[in-house]
Order: sequence, then C-alpha cells, then structure tokens
Amino acid sequence: MSMAVLLSMKPHLMAAWRDAMLALDPTLDIRMFPDTGAPEAIEAAVCWSSHDMAELRRYPNLKLICSMGAGVDHLLRPPGPPPGIPVARLVDTMLTTQMGEWVLLNVLRFHRQDLDYRAQQQARVWDELDAPVTATRSVGILGLGALGSHAAGMIRAVGFPVCGWSRRAKSLPGVTCFDGDAGLDAMVAQTDILVCLLPLTPATRGVIDARLLARLPTGAFVINGARGGHVVDADLLAAIDAGHIAGAALDVFEPEPLPTDHRYWSHPRVVMTPHAASITIPASAAPQVVENIRRARTGEPLLNLVDFSTGY
Amino acid sequence: MSMAVLLSMKPHLMAAWRDAMLALDPTLDIRMFPDTGAPEAIEAAVCWSSHDMAELRRYPNLKLICSMGAGVDHLLRPPGPPPGIPVARLVDTMLTTQMGEWVLLNVLRFHRQDLDYRAQQQARVWDELDAPVTATRSVGILGLGALGSHAAGMIRAVGFPVCGWSRRAKSLPGVTCFDGDAGLDAMVAQTDILVCLLPLTPATRGVIDARLLARLPTGAFVINGARGGHVVDADLLAAIDAGHIAGAALDVFEPEPLPTDHRYWSHPRVVMTPHAASITIPASAAPQVVENIRRARTGEPLLNLVDFSTGY
Repeated sequence: MSMAVLLSMKPHLMAAWRDAMLALDPTLDIRMFPDTGAPEAIEAAVCWSSHDMAELRRYPNLKLICSMGAGVDHLLRPPGPPPGIPVARLVDTMLTTQMGEWVLLNVLRFHRQDLDYRAQQQARVWDELDAPVTATRSVGILGLGALGSHAAGMIRAVGFPVCGWSRRAKSLPGVTCFDGDAGLDAMVAQTDILVCLLPLTPATRGVIDARLLARLPTGAFVINGARGGHVVDADLLAAIDAGHIAGAALDVFEPEPLPTDHRYWSHPRVVMTPHAASITIPASAAPQVVENIRRARTGEPLLNLVDFSTGY
Repeated sequence: MSMAVLLSMKPHLMAAWRDAMLALDPTLDIRMFPDTGAPEAIEAAVCWSSHDMAELRRYPNLKLICSMGAGVDHLLRPPGPPPGIPVARLVDTMLTTQMGEWVLLNVLRFHRQDLDYRAQQQARVWDELDAPVTATRSVGILGLGALGSHAAGMIRAVGFPVCGWSRRAKSLPGVTCFDGDAGLDAMVAQTDILVCLLPLTPATRGVIDARLLARLPTGAFVINGARGGHVVDADLLAAIDAGHIAGAALDVFEPEPLPTDHRYWSHPRVVMTPHAASITIPASAAPQVVENIRRARTGEPLLNLVDFSTGY
C-alpha cells in the first residue's frame, strides 16, 4: 500500500514543496490540502503552523507531523497535535543562516548609528557621530538553540563580545553563557544589544517586559527574531519613548500581520520586517522531511523531535 | 635640541591627538596649528588631509608628514607635499575594522532587501519578499589593500562568494582575484554587489562611470567607502533611475559636505553617511605615528610610506 503524505501550507508554496519532495522520492503519494483523498491513506502531515490541529484528528493512520518552521508554538496550542503523534520541527542550514544574517544586519544597524544617520539624511544634515567601538559593545542572545548559537558565532566573528542565555546551562566557544532566572538578570544588565531567539513557551511568553527592559543599560537596543509573544509591546514602546531603549528591530508580532494602526509601523526607532527574517526554502528543507517520513515508515528513530514537556 | 611636532586637524580632535601622543612619549614637543612657534623647530607634521601643503614649505627642517587617514589623495594634489619629504599614511586596525563593518552593514542591507522593507514599513504593507540566497550573491571588491582585503574576509565569513580586483595581481585566500583592465570588466560582469575601497589616483578617478555600471548585472548594488571622486554621480543616478542599479550606499562625496540640494540626499535608493564609515581614533592610531616620528629622528626605515609613483 502506498503511503500518502498530506501537504498543508500557503498555496504559493505547496507546489514547490511537492516538487522538492518528489525529486527526492518519486514514490511519495502527495496530497495537497484540502484535496486529501481518503483519510485512511494519510500517514504523514507536512504542515505550516497555521494548519488546524483538530483537523489532523481525521487521519486514523497518521504517524508523523512535520512542521514547516523552526518554531512549533502554534502547533502545540490547544487542542495541540493528536495525542501520541510525534512532531518534528525543521532544523535547516538555510533557516539558521538567514536568521543569523538578519540578526547581524540589525546588530550592525544599531551599532553603526544607522537610525540616526537615516534621520540625518532625511533632514539633509552632515554630521559625523562618535566612532563606535565594537570591542566594548556587548551583544546578549536569549536562546542558544540552533538559531541562537549560529547567530552568536556570526556576531562574535565580527568582533563583538557575545553573551548568551538559555534555560538549561550550555557552553559555547567564545560566548559567555548564563542560565536560569539569576543568569538572565545578570546577562541583561551587561547587554547593549539584546537578541531574542527563544522558543515561545509558557515560560518564555512576555519575557521582554518592563522589568527586563529596565535592567538593560540605558541606550540598549532590542532585536526580536523569535515570536511576537516574547515581547510585551506596550512595555517596549514605553521604554523606547522614555529614551531608555534606543531602538528595536522586530520581525515577529502578535497578531500577524500586525494591524495597520499599531504604533510600531510608524515609530522612528522601530525597524520592522514581516516575519521574513528566515524563510523556509523547500529545496533546502525537503531532505530532512523526506528522511523523517522514511524513518516513520520503517520505525527508525525520528529527527528533530519536539519535546512536549518543554514545548520545543 | 627638542624635536617639535606640528599637529593640524579638526579642532575638536587636536587635544585628543596631543594627549594620545604624549601618553606614549612625554618628551614630544607638540605644537597645535596655527600656534607653531619657530618654524625651524618643526621636524614632523601630523595633519589632516585638509592641511595646506604650501604651508608646510615654511618648515625648513621638516623630515616627515603623517596623514591622519588611510587615503592620501588630498595631500598629493598640487602643490603636493614639499619635495623630498616622505609621507606616511595610517594603517590602523580600528580603521580597517570600522570600514569592514560599514561595508558589511550595507552588503547585508541590500542582500536582505532592506530598502524595500523600509518602504513597506512606511506604507504599512505586510508582504514577505523572496528569500535571499547568500551562496549565489556575488560581492565584488575594487581595491585589495588593507581596507579591501579586510572587508573581503568579513564578507566571505558571512557566506557570500567574494571577488576582488586590484591594479596589480594579488592573491587572497577564498577570494577570486582579478587585475588589470580586462580583469575589471570580467569581475564587474559577475558582481551583484560592488564595493569600492580603492585609493583615489588619476587612474581610478571616475572608475564607477556609465560604462562600468552598464556591465554590472541588472539589479546590482553599489557601495562606495573610498572617495567621492571614484563615482561619476550623474552616471550612478541615471543607472539607478533607469532601474539598472537597485541602490547605492555612499559614505564619500565630492565635494564634502555634500551640498544640501544634491539629489543623493532625497533619493529613496541611496543610503548616505557623512564620511563616517571609518573614523580615526587617536588612542588607536597614535602609536604608529609616534613610532614613525622616532624612526625619522634616528634615520630608521619609516612605516606605511606613500609611493608617489602610484599615488598611494
């Protein structure tokens, strides 16, 4: 019997995913949502975080859910995936590379006073600002998973001192590592540019709030490439307006798209991208998905499984 | 007899330079222009490129001119330095680091469609653009001296394929090197982001003109951190307006400051900084200047001498 795979994602991506997967395994029987065919045939679902998890309960022979992104918080929300079905997330070089570039672009933007220079250009002002000193501009990264550790390496290679924080103690070459609640406070107090690349879990929701922002040195910057839910928007805007935080670069929001009347859109110290810091490229990500489907078929251990107890 | 050193630069920098030099050699007799004292006492001049070279002919015992920047084109213009007097330029880690950061910021800005995303934010448009692929975005660097070779290494470390061009053949690890007139055309034809870090000489003036811009692939970007004289402004603006060139980042202009009615100021595809890509930091640059003064005193070989036959 052929094993059918359900694809469910933004329509413009679906054909590219199908083609990338068939190029790797032409025997795959791929169904593009909502054209699922007989529910009994579906044994794996490859889906975007927006797919309705209740809908997946329709498939009695489902063995594996593959998320199309690095973050799986949307999938784990109630009702969550069907009980007992493993969920794999993407750990993809193209995703980590793109995120690293986006973070580095914004670290350099803030370090090199680019918000000020853009405002000067607009006002036709020729004025050289103080020389920035890289060796004393500390970048602190929240989250040292695949994305955070890669970004740490890229930022360090440019010459910035880099700190990192994770829930459980970790060790990374050249990165001053912190963990736990006390470690978070200690790192933030010595961070000039804060970068959030955490998974979104009940424990990390709202981590960038008034309390944490107040602990950052005056003039610090905030970069969020993780999830909108990590930031308490009103607290961040208040800290910027008070002059305590010098600017923010945000790729993620709650909700998305960000409503057009939100203050972020027009704030002169906020740089926005539309959840585009890291875009899944099917040709790069398909091999691990096809491999995981093969493993699910043969009962071999699966790759990049989500731990439901921690939420990532 | 004490050896007097003439300092001549922007007034707000002069005291910092004096202090940095005295910290290294408290015996130096430093005169801050225009308070020169007896001209006969002056044996070395440490000056900004704007200092009048005709004025330096007043000092009969002058042995050395130290430029305060990496570029010496201003010093070499007629009338040029007094005949027979050696000129040293700065080769400084802080200068190469800052320039590398400024170039990398702009490479990433263009690579990550930041001009488009800034315009989208201003228009409150939420629209994910195509994913950028670093491995196929070629960066071509004009000039492989201290600044160009350092920038090449930083850009390559991020994952871009890097080409470089120099007048004379050079070899750099991981960089595809071109030289000569034919090499220039060959490199430009395969360059998506062109970076100019050349010295300004009669041979390189106006190198970025209509002919060169037409050889760049459609959609290419131009970054100039060298001298305004390298770019034919009317040609660059015409190429951007025609849609052939997708944008430019410019730190240097002719003249400086750029007149407030120049089209660059308000052009939506031009990112300007006010000759601030790389700012000399006295504490970092003073040691080589003090060392060169010591060598001039003892007759030892001088560091970082300008070759008058090539102009850099």
